[in-house]
Amino acid sequence: MLKIKVNSLWILLALTVTLNTVNAASKIKDRLEPPSWWIGFKNPVVQLMAYSENIGLLRPEIDHPGLSIQKITAVKNPNYLFIDVLIDDNAAPGTVEIEFKDGKRTKKTMSFELLQRREGSACREGFNSSDAIYLIMPDRFANGNPSNDDVPGMLEKADRDAPYGRHGGDLEGIIQHLDYIVDMGFTAIWLNPVLENNMPESSYHGYATTDYYKIDPRFGSNEDYKKLVEIANKKGLKVIKDMIFNHCGSNHWWMNDLPTDDWINYGHFIRSNYRLSTISDPNASKADLKLATEGWFDSSMPDLNLRNELLRNYLIQNSIWWIEYAGLQGIRQDTYPYPDKYAMAEWNKRINLEYPNFNIVGEAWIGDPSKLCYWQKDFPNADGFNSHLKTIMDFPLMDAMHKAFNEKGGGWMDGLMRLYNVLADDHLYPDVNNMLVFPENHDVGRIFTILNNDIRKLKMATAFVATVRGIPQWYYGTEILMSGNGYEGHANIRQDFPGGWPGDSTNAFTPAGRTNQQNEMVNYLTKILNFRKYSKPIHHGKTLHFIPENNVYVYFRYLDGEAVMVILNNSEDEKRTISGDRFAEILNRYSKGKDILSGQTLDTLDSFDIEAKSARIIELN
Amino acid sequence: MLKIKVNSLWILLALTVTLNTVNAASKIKDRLEPPSWWIGFKNPVVQLMAYSENIGLLRPEIDHPGLSIQKITAVKNPNYLFIDVLIDDNAAPGTVEIEFKDGKRTKKTMSFELLQRREGSACREGFNSSDAIYLIMPDRFANGNPSNDDVPGMLEKADRDAPYGRHGGDLEGIIQHLDYIVDMGFTAIWLNPVLENNMPESSYHGYATTDYYKIDPRFGSNEDYKKLVEIANKKGLKVIKDMIFNHCGSNHWWMNDLPTDDWINYGHFIRSNYRLSTISDPNASKADLKLATEGWFDSSMPDLNLRNELLRNYLIQNSIWWIEYAGLQGIRQDTYPYPDKYAMAEWNKRINLEYPNFNIVGEAWIGDPSKLCYWQKDFPNADGFNSHLKTIMDFPLMDAMHKAFNEKGGGWMDGLMRLYNVLADDHLYPDVNNMLVFPENHDVGRIFTILNNDIRKLKMATAFVATVRGIPQWYYGTEILMSGNGYEGHANIRQDFPGGWPGDSTNAFTPAGRTNQQNEMVNYLTKILNFRKYSKPIHHGKTLHFIPENNVYVYFRYLDGEAVMVILNNSEDEKRTISGDRFAEILNRYSKGKDILSGQTLDTLDSFDIEAKSARIIELN
Repeated sequence: MLKIKVNSLWILLALTVTLNTVNAASKIKDRLEPPSWWIGFKNPVVQLMAYSENIGLLRPEIDHPGLSIQKITAVKNPNYLFIDVLIDDNAAPGTVEIEFKDGKRTKKTMSFELLQRREGSACREGFNSSDAIYLIMPDRFANGNPSNDDVPGMLEKADRDAPYGRHGGDLEGIIQHLDYIVDMGFTAIWLNPVLENNMPESSYHGYATTDYYKIDPRFGSNEDYKKLVEIANKKGLKVIKDMIFNHCGSNHWWMNDLPTDDWINYGHFIRSNYRLSTISDPNASKADLKLATEGWFDSSMPDLNLRNELLRNYLIQNSIWWIEYAGLQGIRQDTYPYPDKYAMAEWNKRINLEYPNFNIVGEAWIGDPSKLCYWQKDFPNADGFNSHLKTIMDFPLMDAMHKAFNEKGGGWMDGLMRLYNVLADDHLYPDVNNMLVFPENHDVGRIFTILNNDIRKLKMATAFVATVRGIPQWYYGTEILMSGNGYEGHANIRQDFPGGWPGDSTNAFTPAGRTNQQNEMVNYLTKILNFRKYSKPIHHGKTLHFIPENNVYVYFRYLDGEAVMVILNNSEDEKRTISGDRFAEILNRYSKGKDILSGQTLDTLDSFDIEAKSARIIELN
Repeated sequence: MLKIKVNSLWILLALTVTLNTVNAASKIKDRLEPPSWWIGFKNPVVQLMAYSENIGLLRPEIDHPGLSIQKITAVKNPNYLFIDVLIDDNAAPGTVEIEFKDGKRTKKTMSFELLQRREGSACREGFNSSDAIYLIMPDRFANGNPSNDDVPGMLEKADRDAPYGRHGGDLEGIIQHLDYIVDMGFTAIWLNPVLENNMPESSYHGYATTDYYKIDPRFGSNEDYKKLVEIANKKGLKVIKDMIFNHCGSNHWWMNDLPTDDWINYGHFIRSNYRLSTISDPNASKADLKLATEGWFDSSMPDLNLRNELLRNYLIQNSIWWIEYAGLQGIRQDTYPYPDKYAMAEWNKRINLEYPNFNIVGEAWIGDPSKLCYWQKDFPNADGFNSHLKTIMDFPLMDAMHKAFNEKGGGWMDGLMRLYNVLADDHLYPDVNNMLVFPENHDVGRIFTILNNDIRKLKMATAFVATVRGIPQWYYGTEILMSGNGYEGHANIRQDFPGGWPGDSTNAFTPAGRTNQQNEMVNYLTKILNFRKYSKPIHHGKTLHFIPENNVYVYFRYLDGEAVMVILNNSEDEKRTISGDRFAEILNRYSKGKDILSGQTLDTLDSFDIEAKSARIIELN
């Protein structure tokens, strides 16, 4: 790193800068990112990335009240310049002009918007265990605006016959069905990524970003996204944005003209070994660790090097920009452990600094609790590492659910014992209320299929997910019994929601368009979630569970004189009567109950009947 | 608790003491335990348990230089009296008389021996990762003294035809074969329990103690045990004593006349649920936890209540007594998590106080690393609990070995990947060098049987156990390919060592009495252990391991310029050639090697050939 002092500014020249070499990249479209910023962050500096032909050879100047350039960083590629701007709390909002000069002559002008933050922005409440999240794959949910199915400049246009093609679902489609989601009792939505994915194929899922500051126009505009959040918020739904820092799409605009040699790990496609244990394992080889974290997820997904301070800063700011711009309540970070862990810890810390009550869930797809615990904020790791990641996904519990309800039970470790055994690891997690619990997501088999299309089992799984500690997450369409095997390819588990497209033969968004069984499931879920919405013991209570006996698992969620009892009977044909004696340590404090599903009042807590393959949820009082 | 001051002594009356009620227990044999004690412990107080008819109604007095009675505790049963004696560092060794008085009249006299500690006793070095342990079931190893096969007063006499009967093995038999053990390269022996088990049947295994201060006379005398330790120590073998605090045998002498009502958990047989997770699980019910820890292991094994301070103290002193009396280097504690965990932590602390370099391994039979880690000293448990237990048994690694060598491998988590995956949890353990590693013990199937009688697999397992981090433990007879399924009952895995009995048709203690394959295995083990004996990287080094590829697992143990490379090739028929490139991060520091098994010198480290189903151990230099 070479430092040059020019007019009392430090110009940092990263790598070997050849200032007089002009890069031959064709058709450079000028960019200044982020396109806007706000006054009043705890960190008062924004680092602008200016992109324009040979802009790295120029000197930027800003003449705007309360703004000053703190640092300029040029890199090997002269088409980039990074400008650190200090924003005083008293700075004036408005358009900020940046003049790029060659000596005294202004050769180029760029601008960005300086904005006031919205009221209470820093204190916004993120999603938490009082919420229930509905996960939507936007391309597959509802096509609210068919006019954006084919957008000029976008490589793929909608084709519903192609399993891996785009189907036309969009933000407008989601907006049109927010009431459907709210009515079921959800309080948050997580959309799979919606940033531009201008890839030649399989771009529907959104995990190959080609522009970090632009909603994919086939989903809508940035303004549409902001509108979706506003409307959702008004209806009582928090919004969680899916982000991907590990990789971008191979068609990302910077791939043709990379800022530095180390922007992309390895510089070309080398596949990751996907062995996440190398990151927490004190015995792991450096070579294996490097391949795990720097190897690419796929040939179409260049692996971003977040140890590069400029790129790291670019992405951290990008997160803050979306939170502030769209008014988000949460982030879901894809493939969380794959990027540099220290960079990701910094990301969490900087977001927590600006939004202390915000929440982020990281996809650490790790089945061993012994390895998963490494990733939650404040776990006392032997190596001193703290991820600062508040919420982790409970994959061990998902795995357990996939087996528990299908097994006969009765053995030492099968059936419902699997659920009990995973929860018995709770001593490892610094914050069990910040575990995301889910029976499935967009990457695994549909839970209804896994449970052999048995609605009784799905109901038990539903009752469990909605009452166990943590933040429940539901995948779109499971309420109408959508099916699909994970092993037959992802398209199979990401099918279109019937009724989301004009002309669909059935409309499962309405009771009339659903079969009896679909309605039965929607009603079951609706009843439980609308109860959960106001149940403090389930939101923030402790758990008290009893070793499953005779295929019956009983647990309680409790808090200061309030408690909820849950009974799961996984036996195939046997109705059971459970004596209350065994639960005296908690039942002693209560005398009556209310069955949430039947509405029935319980005048004694001496014993409880429960049908085979069913769940009861009893509010105690 | 009622306190009465008598002649400046506090007499503590636990529970409801009815001093004038004489217990009708018949044939009381007077006892004063411990029978001897030592001058110079950090804790200068010994608590004597006096047992004699109505002794609780008397007042003890001691007139001995440097000794004073600090406290007297009477309990409900008047046949017991607990006397805390303070021993000054300058106290005079010799026989100490205790006079038990009724007013001024001496009604009874008892005595114990006050001894000087042996030189360096407090600093004794316990077993550690520089050792290799040979586990012996004494009744089944060698019968060195047939005259003690049938001892008057002992309910069972030897009967080799009875699978669950006593077979006559004894301490003398072990003494006679110590050279056999030493020659193989072992540096420690762990004997299954040898205290008196005067039970009507199945007493051979020793886990139903009937006297905590007496070696079972069918094994020998206390003096014989002390002699065994002395001889073993002289030959370079440390001795580890198996202890059981969770339960005693139902024929223990105190069972006819219990000191207090709470001496035995539940007071009668109620079976444990064996669910150890209830102890570490923050969600566990109190009822389940109680049954786990206070329920009995078996109807013949009354569960001791270590929350009773007197019993706890009795057992802690008993451990210290055996360490000091016999000169032990270690303890193996049976069913470690079952007794009260705080009592067991106190036990560890008090032993560590007197013998800071001593070592104790606890049998925490837990297969999930997420739950096992709770039990090792200094794990930062969320509930603040510290077990103070230095060494835990690596059951997860044992489970992995039982599958790893039998599987084809090549999948995400099968074959040798299982070993890699368990070691990848090492971040959880505060001290990985204090993990006991073992392919089997006296409670599970014989490893040779589990590995389908394939000596090639057994050799790989042997090389692995001897070179992986931790303290290796071997079960008697596996070196001569003894077999047995765990699921056919314990007798099957605890068969007599051939040649241990006069008149045995073969004597596998000698090369001439072994088959070629048996000799092949003994020689293989001998070569590896005698190398291990002097290998510092294996004793104390770190581990560096590489993700198994093509059924080959490569790892290194290294320490300050010394390193050992281990290659395991688990493929069925394929000899492999492994390029050294992948291991450059460590091989770069070395240029040559020595193959420990073949004795061959390696002039380059560019590549390594390895036969199918085999191990190589290469010392790098």
